[in-house]
Amino acid sequence: MVDVGRKRPTLRTATAEAWVRLSPQVTAALTAGARSAKGPVLETAELAGIMAAKRTFELIPLCHPIPLDSIDVTARMFDDERVHITATVRCRAVTGVEMEALTAVTVAALTIYDMGKSAGKDMIIESIRLLEKTGGKSGDWRAERQTSTTRASP
Amino acid sequence: MVDVGRKRPTLRTATAEAWVRLSPQVTAALTAGARSAKGPVLETAELAGIMAAKRTFELIPLCHPIPLDSIDVTARMFDDERVHITATVRCRAVTGVEMEALTAVTVAALTIYDMGKSAGKDMIIESIRLLEKTGGKSGDWRAERQTSTTRASP
Amino acid sequence: MVDVGRKRPTLRTATAEAWVRLSPQVTAALTAGARSAKGPVLETAELAGIMAAKRTFELIPLCHPIPLDSIDVTARMFDDERVHITATVRCRAVTGVEMEALTAVTVAALTIYDMGKSAGKDMIIESIRLLEKTGGKSGDWRAERQTSTTRASP
Amino acid sequence: MVDVGRKRPTLRTATAEAWVRLSPQVTAALTAGARSAKGPVLETAELAGIMAAKRTFELIPLCHPIPLDSIDVTARMFDDERVHITATVRCRAVTGVEMEALTAVTVAALTIYDMGKSAGKDMIIESIRLLEKTGGKSGDWRAERQTSTTRASP
Amino acid sequence: MVDVGRKRPTLRTATAEAWVRLSPQVTAALTAGARSAKGPVLETAELAGIMAAKRTFELIPLCHPIPLDSIDVTARMFDDERVHITATVRCRAVTGVEMEALTAVTVAALTIYDMGKSAGKDMIIESIRLLEKTGGKSGDWRAERQTSTTRASP
Amino acid sequence: MVDVGRKRPTLRTATAEAWVRLSPQVTAALTAGARSAKGPVLETAELAGIMAAKRTFELIPLCHPIPLDSIDVTARMFDDERVHITATVRCRAVTGVEMEALTAVTVAALTIYDMGKSAGKDMIIESIRLLEKTGGKSGDWRAERQTSTTRASP
Repeated sequence: MVDVGRKRPTLRTATAEAWVRLSPQVTAALTAGARSAKGPVLETAELAGIMAAKRTFELIPLCHPIPLDSIDVTARMFDDERVHITATVRCRAVTGVEMEALTAVTVAALTIYDMGKSAGKDMIIESIRLLEKTGGKSGDWRAERQTSTTRASP
Repeated sequence: MVDVGRKRPTLRTATAEAWVRLSPQVTAALTAGARSAKGPVLETAELAGIMAAKRTFELIPLCHPIPLDSIDVTARMFDDERVHITATVRCRAVTGVEMEALTAVTVAALTIYDMGKSAGKDMIIESIRLLEKTGGKSGDWRAERQTSTTRASP
Repeated sequence: MVDVGRKRPTLRTATAEAWVRLSPQVTAALTAGARSAKGPVLETAELAGIMAAKRTFELIPLCHPIPLDSIDVTARMFDDERVHITATVRCRAVTGVEMEALTAVTVAALTIYDMGKSAGKDMIIESIRLLEKTGGKSGDWRAERQTSTTRASP
Repeated sequence: MVDVGRKRPTLRTATAEAWVRLSPQVTAALTAGARSAKGPVLETAELAGIMAAKRTFELIPLCHPIPLDSIDVTARMFDDERVHITATVRCRAVTGVEMEALTAVTVAALTIYDMGKSAGKDMIIESIRLLEKTGGKSGDWRAERQTSTTRASP
Repeated sequence: MVDVGRKRPTLRTATAEAWVRLSPQVTAALTAGARSAKGPVLETAELAGIMAAKRTFELIPLCHPIPLDSIDVTARMFDDERVHITATVRCRAVTGVEMEALTAVTVAALTIYDMGKSAGKDMIIESIRLLEKTGGKSGDWRAERQTSTTRASP
Repeated sequence: MVDVGRKRPTLRTATAEAWVRLSPQVTAALTAGARSAKGPVLETAELAGIMAAKRTFELIPLCHPIPLDSIDVTARMFDDERVHITATVRCRAVTGVEMEALTAVTVAALTIYDMGKSAGKDMIIESIRLLEKTGGKSGDWRAERQTSTTRASP
């Protein structure tokens, strides 16, 4: 684990995204009130993402345990075929929170898969990536707008 | 949480995959002995995937806690740009292990991101999906070979 | 930890309840769409209860880790002053699931407290108790209908 | 999760309480050396409460993970029918520790239930509430002495 | 993780031991009521060992998660210089519980270290080993009575 | 849990060691590429040690949860009979990290046991101790070079 002992705590943020591509059957099931037999899908996914972000240091072997100031996760139907998930994490610490944001969107996406899978197992979780980070020694960073994967996404 | 109390335990397996698209800088860093400053990347990712699969029930709100018979995770450089990760999970239980396999490849992919991110943050985790499942009431299931995302792969 | 090795697995269920007494300010905040600034209160509480039930064996020192067949948690406004929470847990195992049901209602109640506390800290979690259990060597058991605490509850 | 990034770390404390109402059989079992077949009841409960307080952020979905300075949990026989549990938690952080104190007394109470339940399942956990908090933007707060529930308690 | 899917569940037990060598100062502190400033040392250690055994599968990367039938941990002053810890774990499963027994004695030993360390940091945890296992394909196994380390013991 | 609220955060480090005594069969198995059927032994052990150190506060009842700056774990064949494990942990906090370092070497040692046990169960984990600590109110501390146990170790 990289030694962060000489770094100074600064405000850091990270935003990540993920897409869940649904089959028509799953879309139909989810949009029927956006509740599967397992409950409200998108809100459950958001909550799962928040809770997973707090446990990133347990999952990712070399991540540092750090106090987090806030975690926001949003999951919404982007169009008939896709759910778009974004997460923003903030902390004032000596390491960044990129992994926390990525873990949040990922576990939110897995939760959607779990809640939709009885209606169809051919969902695909796509294009999990960091959108932006701020703070820290390496400074601010922003993903290029268009990648081969997201270009296909309106 | 769906009641699985009337189901009979049967042998169940699930196999999932994920791809990590690397930037040239990350590829260079990883293939320089396949070790980042944080250690051996692919083996660390495999181990993280195995350990995460065992904790799927903690992460995914409505997953059942079940004993697992085996978890295999493989991460390898597919070509200069991509790591391919697969996971197969087996159990004899009343629920399937799709989520365990998907969680394993996902956390393995996140671990690769974590270990490569100092060399470049523009990695993308792509196309996490179930490849195959066997056993259970809904029977065997296999993903169609080509999807819009993986067709672009190889 | 009591040795359960000679017991035979049987179907077991347990149902527990808890009450959260709200102050008028919290009631007003919660019923304004039943969402606090932190999100949908009752559904978040239900989910927290489900997730906590799965981790009962980590929290209660002498509880056995067991596979669970189902966990149902329901939180609803009982009247203007109280939220009523019930949880039913089922398993086929060598030990009962009383503690899992009690843990579920308890953590659900704590979650409601957490989400309402900015509107008023004088909430009280009342009368957490087992309502019923079935299965196991000690057989079925049902709480007497009225206790001094719940008699006050309509 | 509420953003606490602009708050300044201050010393914060919170004290909570819970009551466990015992049946005569359980009282007899516990006071027979205050040990059940499962071990020393009150001390086990105190320890379980301490350990649970450290994991509050995992259990309560929107709680922040924070370093804690101290956790004290006390469980004692109040009279022949009741165990009284109190917990005080301290930290220097940007969020309060009310939920940590409440989680501590709650899990301590559940542990007493678990250790006594073979002697009688009709125990009731009563009147879990915050007694006092200090520090933070909202300042100090103290519960009113008497509530309908605790008035019955000497 | 080794596939245990073709094995049949059988009764399995494992017993392990560990020794904690104390300095005179720590011995004096512990035997002064066997309570450190942190509480009753030996009982806290036993409880920590039990709780850790249940989480062995989280700590040891390739251990299987399995239901456990019982965990017994005993810590006692062997003589003025040493605490002796033993743990016995039982299950009916497809894998053994050697690691659970070893984890229990180890974490119990670490807990004693933690509670005594303010009185002296020169404690040594010695000779953690498996004493006996029964059941499973490889059959029963018993440690040879005397090893170079334990011969020095008693 | 001891109140550390009046202490000032300072840089703290702790280094611990453990030894795993192998039987000839296990040595042969491990040195055959240093991979057991379960994978690369020493690297898996190092990773398990790092991950366990982060969870020390969950395992050791009275340990404080603290952010950690770095964790280094090294496991290497010392001679034909022994693996030597060391761990160094650093933080800037109000409590020391002795327990984190000890937990790291301990879980690393248990992992080696787990991975070698199919080749022979007579391994012994020996002489787990603190080598050095720096920082904090009690100042720096260093273990005496030779103890009865380690004198036997070259």
